[in-house]
Formats: sequence, C-alpha cells, structure tokens
Amino acid sequence: MNGGIGLDRLSLNQATVKHLGLTEAVALCVRHDIPAIGLWRDRVAEAGLAETAAAVRAAGLRVSSLCRGGFFTVADPDRRRAALADNLAALAEAAELGTGTLVLVSGGLPPGQRDLGLARRMVEDAIGSLVPEAQRLGVRLGIEALHPMFCADRCVISSLGEAVDLALAFPADAVGVVVDTYHVWWDARLAGEIARAGQRIVSFQVCDWVLPLPADTLLGRGHLGDGCIDFGAVAAAVTAAGYDGDVEVEIFNAEVWDAPPDQTAATVKERFAAALGLFRPVSG
Amino acid sequence: MNGGIGLDRLSLNQATVKHLGLTEAVALCVRHDIPAIGLWRDRVAEAGLAETAAAVRAAGLRVSSLCRGGFFTVADPDRRRAALADNLAALAEAAELGTGTLVLVSGGLPPGQRDLGLARRMVEDAIGSLVPEAQRLGVRLGIEALHPMFCADRCVISSLGEAVDLALAFPADAVGVVVDTYHVWWDARLAGEIARAGQRIVSFQVCDWVLPLPADTLLGRGHLGDGCIDFGAVAAAVTAAGYDGDVEVEIFNAEVWDAPPDQTAATVKERFAAALGLFRPVSG
Repeated sequence: MNGGIGLDRLSLNQATVKHLGLTEAVALCVRHDIPAIGLWRDRVAEAGLAETAAAVRAAGLRVSSLCRGGFFTVADPDRRRAALADNLAALAEAAELGTGTLVLVSGGLPPGQRDLGLARRMVEDAIGSLVPEAQRLGVRLGIEALHPMFCADRCVISSLGEAVDLALAFPADAVGVVVDTYHVWWDARLAGEIARAGQRIVSFQVCDWVLPLPADTLLGRGHLGDGCIDFGAVAAAVTAAGYDGDVEVEIFNAEVWDAPPDQTAATVKERFAAALGLFRPVSG
Repeated sequence: MNGGIGLDRLSLNQATVKHLGLTEAVALCVRHDIPAIGLWRDRVAEAGLAETAAAVRAAGLRVSSLCRGGFFTVADPDRRRAALADNLAALAEAAELGTGTLVLVSGGLPPGQRDLGLARRMVEDAIGSLVPEAQRLGVRLGIEALHPMFCADRCVISSLGEAVDLALAFPADAVGVVVDTYHVWWDARLAGEIARAGQRIVSFQVCDWVLPLPADTLLGRGHLGDGCIDFGAVAAAVTAAGYDGDVEVEIFNAEVWDAPPDQTAATVKERFAAALGLFRPVSG
C-alpha cells in the first residue's frame, strides 16, 4: 500500500489549464482518464454552479477541492464582513460541488501594516467564525501555507508548521491543512510537520520549483521533474501521515498555460507516474 | 538598557555601497560617524589584506563581520577540498581584520541533486571540519539562514531554527548564527528561535522587504522603513536574547547602489535611528 501513489488518485487542478473553461477542462480529464479535478470559483461561476455540479457528476469525476477562500486580513469592518460572506458562499459552493475541501489562502499584511501577529490573529478569528458552517455542510477548510516569499502580499501563513498550529486550534471535522510541495519543500522540518498534521491533511498539491524565478514569482512553477523538488520524499511522508485522497497537480506557469491542453494533460500523467508511482528510499 | 539600539552600534555593511572600494567605504563611515563596517572579501583582496587591516584600524572602525565563507555543497572531492581551503583562508583573513565573525552562506543544492538532507549534511560536515581553526583564531562561524526562495540555488539553510539546530551541534566559541531580518522576518516562530539562539547570535543584519520583488530577487532589499518588516519587534527579541554587538545595515538594491554614497549613508543613519532607536511595545 505504501509503495507509491497511482494515477487513480491523480487530480488535475483547473489552474494548470488556466485558459480552459469548465466544460473543456472536464472533457480534458475524461479524455485522459484523469479521475478527479480541482475547481476554481471563477470558472465555476462562469459556467454556473448547478451546471458545473451536474457536469462533473455526469463525467464521473471526483472534485478534489474548491479553490479558494481566504483573504481574511482586512481591517475595515465592511470589507471584513464581505470577506466572511464570500467565504460562507464558497463553503456552500463546495458542498454543492460535492467536494469536502475548500482551500484557503489567508491574505497578506493589511496595507500599510507591519504587524504579522495581528494579521495572523485576523486569520484565526475568521476561520473560527466559519467553523460552524463548515461543520454543518461537511466541508473542511484547508489552510494552505504559501511560500514565505508571498508572506507580505498574499498569505501570512508561511510554513506548514504554522498552518498545523492554526488548524489544531479548531475541530478536525472543520479545519485542516493543505500540503503544496511548491510552498513547503524547502523546510527542514517538513517531514515532522507532515507527521504532526496527520489526519488534518485535507489536500495534497504538487508542482515543481523551477529556477530562475520569473519576474512574476507567482508563475515560477513547473511540471514534476522539471525542477528540484524530491516528490517521493514528500509523498512518502504525506502517505505515512495517513493521507489517501486525491493528489492535485496545480501548475501556475505561463508556458504551461500556452501549451496545447492535451499535451499538458499527457505530461501531467507521465510525470505524476514517474515522480509518485513508486517511492524510493528516503535519505534522512 | 532595553529601550533601543543606538547609532553607536551601527555598522555599514560594504555591500550597501557596492560600487565603493575599500578606502572610499572606510572614508564614508568616518565622514558620517558610523563606528563599524562589515567587510567583503573581494573588496578586501582588491585593497590588500594588511592594507585593509591597517586602514580600518587607523580610521578607528570596528569590523563587525567578514562576508563571506560557505558554499559547502559541492560533491566533487577536489572542489570540496578547494571550498574548505577557501574557508580556512577566510577565517585567517577575519582574524587579521580583527573581526570575530565570518558570515557563512551555505550553498544550494548540488547541480542535478534533489536531496536536501544530503546537502545539509555536507554543510554540517564542512562546518565541523572548520571548527578547530575557528577556535584557534578566535573567529566564530556565523551560519546565516537565507530566505527560502534561495534554498535551491544559494543556501539550503532556510530558517533561523534550522541554523540554530546546526550551530548547537558545535562549540559556542566556534559556531553561531546570523540573524538577517530580510531572510527571516516572515517566520511565525522567529521570536522563539531568536530566544533559543541566545548567545549564539554572532551578527544581526537589517534591511527591509520591499514589494514587488525585482526580476533579480537578490536585489529586492530596501532601506529600513521602505518595506514591511517590523524592525522593532525583531530587534527587541535579539536584544532580549543577549546580543549587544554591532548591527549591520546590508542592502542589496541596484537603486541604492546607484545613489550618491553620502546620501545612502545619511539615509542609513536616519532610518536606523527611526526603526531601532526606541523599541515600541510588541504585539504577541
């Protein structure tokens, strides 16, 4: 059982084929025997929520997660209420789409602020206020640590350990963590934090760290194998922690977006099998 | 005593005025009553080691550190021996320059390698082999954690906690850690790791995190106050840990380099006083 992760657990995150609409992305998965998809709210809204739910059901696809909620670090009371309302809507959308995971990107420092502790308390408070609805709907909030280079402007949760600390403050049926290799691969304490996360892992996302970083550092991600991440080591740790759900390939990269989607899907499958199909022995 | 850090502890790291030779940088410090300087090996070599030692002594400047040793993650035995020899030379240079700290940047993943554990063991082994000479010369090796965005290509030591773990494996009179705000400010565990570092802190370097990141991410640093780092909070933690040495302003930024050096020195002093002169209450 612990020998690797098979293609039966592959999920294509919609962001990897950013230029495709919902219907095209679903068709692509079907055409390539990819059994699950990670959805984005903008594309779902464009296609219609009920229509999307029906389409993925008709296609026989699992929805591995909905991206995304979060962006909680707003000080203005009206904007804060709006952010919470938007996250409640996202929870309802996730439930209707049949996924158990809403991915959260927490938000960066409020404009003009330097107080990371305050920003982090805003995130904690917001998550706390979403817990009852998450429990009622059976959707777990997945706290995603983003790479520390995004701490100021996108996500003040910068390491898996910090995400785990935060998740553990809430009930396990409502709040978990997302492990995304791109954001956490550098961390010397990663294996220990993955073990500590245990059943709190609600999503496992993979893509590679490719150098040089592009001018827009959001887009520096690559196909598995094109960069320097040791996927086998991370996947073995996530598996040992008990995670047996779908594994999303999520690649933000302008070249990947411009490639023919069928070529992208084929590459995603081939690299997934090569990188995760069999875990090699891990050095300590 | 804990009310702030005065200008009597300001050090100008030579990299902040990159276009100046050694003599000019020393003269700039004297002209602006900056009592200490952080030196770089290339500029020292250019001016001559004995000549540099004499010049800083004649100017009455303290040498807060020598930058830098490290780059230990080489697999080839000949290149590895060369790296160690270069670090032994750097230790001797530090001793002759009268500084107690050699800053180490450990090196990234060896080309084609993905095994962070192996790279980190190479760093540990190399530091271990330098310990006797460091002790003999009375120069401490300062392990610097670089921001995780440099993990692949420059420094596999990516968080202060990891640097502290590594330092604690060696005698306190030989190995310590460098706290550089630019590299560690995002870390939710920073205050705790600074406290744990305690007397192991051998250098405190400051510059700001400025957005957007430039195309060359090495050059995204700014004058204190131009970005989003809460210097008072970090400085208070470093002070509480017992550090009472010089504080280096080290800014890699093409615009700062192109500015008139006297203007840079004046800005460095003014911002240092504003950011570190008085610690404000820190939120938790």
